[in-house]
Amino acid sequence: MQPHELTATEAARLIAEQKLGAEELARSCLARIEARDPAVRAWVTYDPSKVIGRARELDKILISKGPVGPLHGLPFGVKDMIDTVDYPTENNSPIYVGNQPSHDAHAVRIVKAQGAYVLGKTDTVEFAAGGRKALTRNPFDLTRTPGGSSSGSGAAVGDRQVPLAFGTQTGGSHIRPASFNGIYALKPTCNVVSWSGARQYSPSLDTIGWYGRCAEDLTLVAKAFRLRGADALQRPGVKGLKVGLAHTHNGTKAEPAGREALALAAKRLSSAGAIVDEITLDADFATLNDAQTLIANWEGRAQFLPDYLENYENLHEDFRLKIETDGNMTADAMRTIYDTVYRCRARFDALFGADLDCILTYSAPGEAPVGQHTTGDWVMNSMWTMLNVPCLAIPCHKGPNGMPVGVQIIGQRWGDATLLGIGESVAPVIDMPASG
Amino acid sequence: MQPHELTATEAARLIAEQKLGAEELARSCLARIEARDPAVRAWVTYDPSKVIGRARELDKILISKGPVGPLHGLPFGVKDMIDTVDYPTENNSPIYVGNQPSHDAHAVRIVKAQGAYVLGKTDTVEFAAGGRKALTRNPFDLTRTPGGSSSGSGAAVGDRQVPLAFGTQTGGSHIRPASFNGIYALKPTCNVVSWSGARQYSPSLDTIGWYGRCAEDLTLVAKAFRLRGADALQRPGVKGLKVGLAHTHNGTKAEPAGREALALAAKRLSSAGAIVDEITLDADFATLNDAQTLIANWEGRAQFLPDYLENYENLHEDFRLKIETDGNMTADAMRTIYDTVYRCRARFDALFGADLDCILTYSAPGEAPVGQHTTGDWVMNSMWTMLNVPCLAIPCHKGPNGMPVGVQIIGQRWGDATLLGIGESVAPVIDMPASG
Repeated sequence: MQPHELTATEAARLIAEQKLGAEELARSCLARIEARDPAVRAWVTYDPSKVIGRARELDKILISKGPVGPLHGLPFGVKDMIDTVDYPTENNSPIYVGNQPSHDAHAVRIVKAQGAYVLGKTDTVEFAAGGRKALTRNPFDLTRTPGGSSSGSGAAVGDRQVPLAFGTQTGGSHIRPASFNGIYALKPTCNVVSWSGARQYSPSLDTIGWYGRCAEDLTLVAKAFRLRGADALQRPGVKGLKVGLAHTHNGTKAEPAGREALALAAKRLSSAGAIVDEITLDADFATLNDAQTLIANWEGRAQFLPDYLENYENLHEDFRLKIETDGNMTADAMRTIYDTVYRCRARFDALFGADLDCILTYSAPGEAPVGQHTTGDWVMNSMWTMLNVPCLAIPCHKGPNGMPVGVQIIGQRWGDATLLGIGESVAPVIDMPASG
Repeated sequence: MQPHELTATEAARLIAEQKLGAEELARSCLARIEARDPAVRAWVTYDPSKVIGRARELDKILISKGPVGPLHGLPFGVKDMIDTVDYPTENNSPIYVGNQPSHDAHAVRIVKAQGAYVLGKTDTVEFAAGGRKALTRNPFDLTRTPGGSSSGSGAAVGDRQVPLAFGTQTGGSHIRPASFNGIYALKPTCNVVSWSGARQYSPSLDTIGWYGRCAEDLTLVAKAFRLRGADALQRPGVKGLKVGLAHTHNGTKAEPAGREALALAAKRLSSAGAIVDEITLDADFATLNDAQTLIANWEGRAQFLPDYLENYENLHEDFRLKIETDGNMTADAMRTIYDTVYRCRARFDALFGADLDCILTYSAPGEAPVGQHTTGDWVMNSMWTMLNVPCLAIPCHKGPNGMPVGVQIIGQRWGDATLLGIGESVAPVIDMPASG
């Protein structure tokens, strides 16, 4: 096995035990990128000499002082709307070509302070919000989308080019690419990871998450972010686990491959002793997907105003319209929408406890669609983003075209560590591609 | 009258009419600063040559091409936790001494794009959140606090050193200094002004606002930010205006000078034909002030983690504790708190309409207290910040020690323009220092 094929958890252990050099891992990732990225196009920028230089430095530090932290020697892909000092942050916008921030985003500082480094920047939908698509292709089938807006991060981890990467989710930008690229993802509870230094779109929804190749990879990063309870994470096991199977009001949008993934995941969990019961969310929840678009427009208006004023010609119409039409909404109508969302957050969290440990639901309608004109449908994601709850994506099977299809498990707000523990328990049961 | 004594509205008009040069205004402000700031200490940094250079440039542009925008030639003070390319952003933290951002915060970009410029950076409580106090003194009495955390911005505008300045509010950091320094302030609805590029503390509360010397100054800036409805602002007049006089559950904390200000404002409005009725908010609202501290701690944890990991020794204990103790709260307890806040937001907004145009309440308990060990009590502010609603501070009278004491009017979420129109109508009635 080549180092680039290792999970982050395995690589971190081998590096700490001095059985693998950070440089060796870096070179393996770079070789994979050089072989594959001309076709996959996950990366906007990366600099091999910078990467090798930093990895070497970390190898020296390990020997002389011990590990900087639990992420010692691990490279991250960083979605190109999250600021980095190592590379420009271009937001896939013509306005930001060559744009070099002076500071790392908080999320980047946190992983660097614990021994990780930035391998490069990954392609994104413009501002992670609309406009231009990423140029990235799905590594499992280059005619298909890797999903979006975290297109490059999802594809890079899925293609074994880098073990870990940051993505973001405002609607369905993080969990959907996980499904399309056959990888694991955590979108934490909103605001438990600082958004500072990432390009804001809709502050009450915007959430930074990360991709990995197993549930333990997600936990490794969650510990670095000191998510509440992550330091004393419990694996509850599968037996007796109370799982709410949620088809949701959007279930009719599921394709056969998506339905099969969810049914398979439920069946595998039941067979392993979990108590899987269908759970129905009432009509209030059915409004949340449409409301997500309205809130993102309503809040996005303020976030794109500087570019609108400074550089109207180069700002995509998607963003101009947020300012010019204000989503055609009134404050009264928006008040009703926010109040419904707020009510749903409280009611959703109240479902958890004696009768429910986690929700199991779709990550995406089905396989990644063909074409570069689409990033797929985020219909299976927006509701959960609106609830601000943690979502953990798990690969499940291969669809009729051989494409990965995943599911997600969902917890209550600030239940990130509980969800990660459940994720570690259920992943080996759900993620069985051989039998998929 | 010296140019530095002009309101922003007057200065903008005179500049547009070419009766006042931007350079002339800049030199007048700089002279005032040089005369006064050794005592007041509102400014962390300002560079006269940079200021005069930019003002001169704006004068040339005006003649050759006309005004850049409605803020042409106006200088802003910028609270030193909001990023600027012109000056370092030091956050009043030893960690950030000399820290030079590569980009302006969104709020700064927006006013620059419309002809304004940054005069300098104003002192702040550490990270606008705790720790070290600003060195700023109250310009009306140097033995007293100007309030905080927007200490320098409040004092600079109050002392006629600059016509406009940005502050921020997460608890009571923007409206309280307005009262203590005898000036006008708008804290808009949360998230209608982008926070991007300002130092985050508690994302569901953090709000950038601005100071001016009359209600029209606040509107001028609100139009630059395209706050909804500000372009077609209506002044409803005072006659028949339905004002809810809210003593709130915190009214017992009001000092005689604060009570007198509120009573005077109510009486002046009644005399001018407004319908002023006492309004009582129920027990749920009484919990919001304590809840503000808990939410700020709960959310602040993620925001100070990078500094905690990188620079523990230089991070004030106030911020270390957010990470180490997590406010001693559980997720279950925090869920209850958020749900109460959410419920109150909906219920508060529902008060407005046929029976209520705005709330009238305290801006601060009373006069600015003596001493540099305190920035005064934000007990009259936190509840409104928690409700995310727009708050507009209006000077009202002088207390027994000759210090200014103001009041605030409050609207419903996204009712910023309505509140500004009311503010313009009621300000000449409430703000009568001669009779105060």
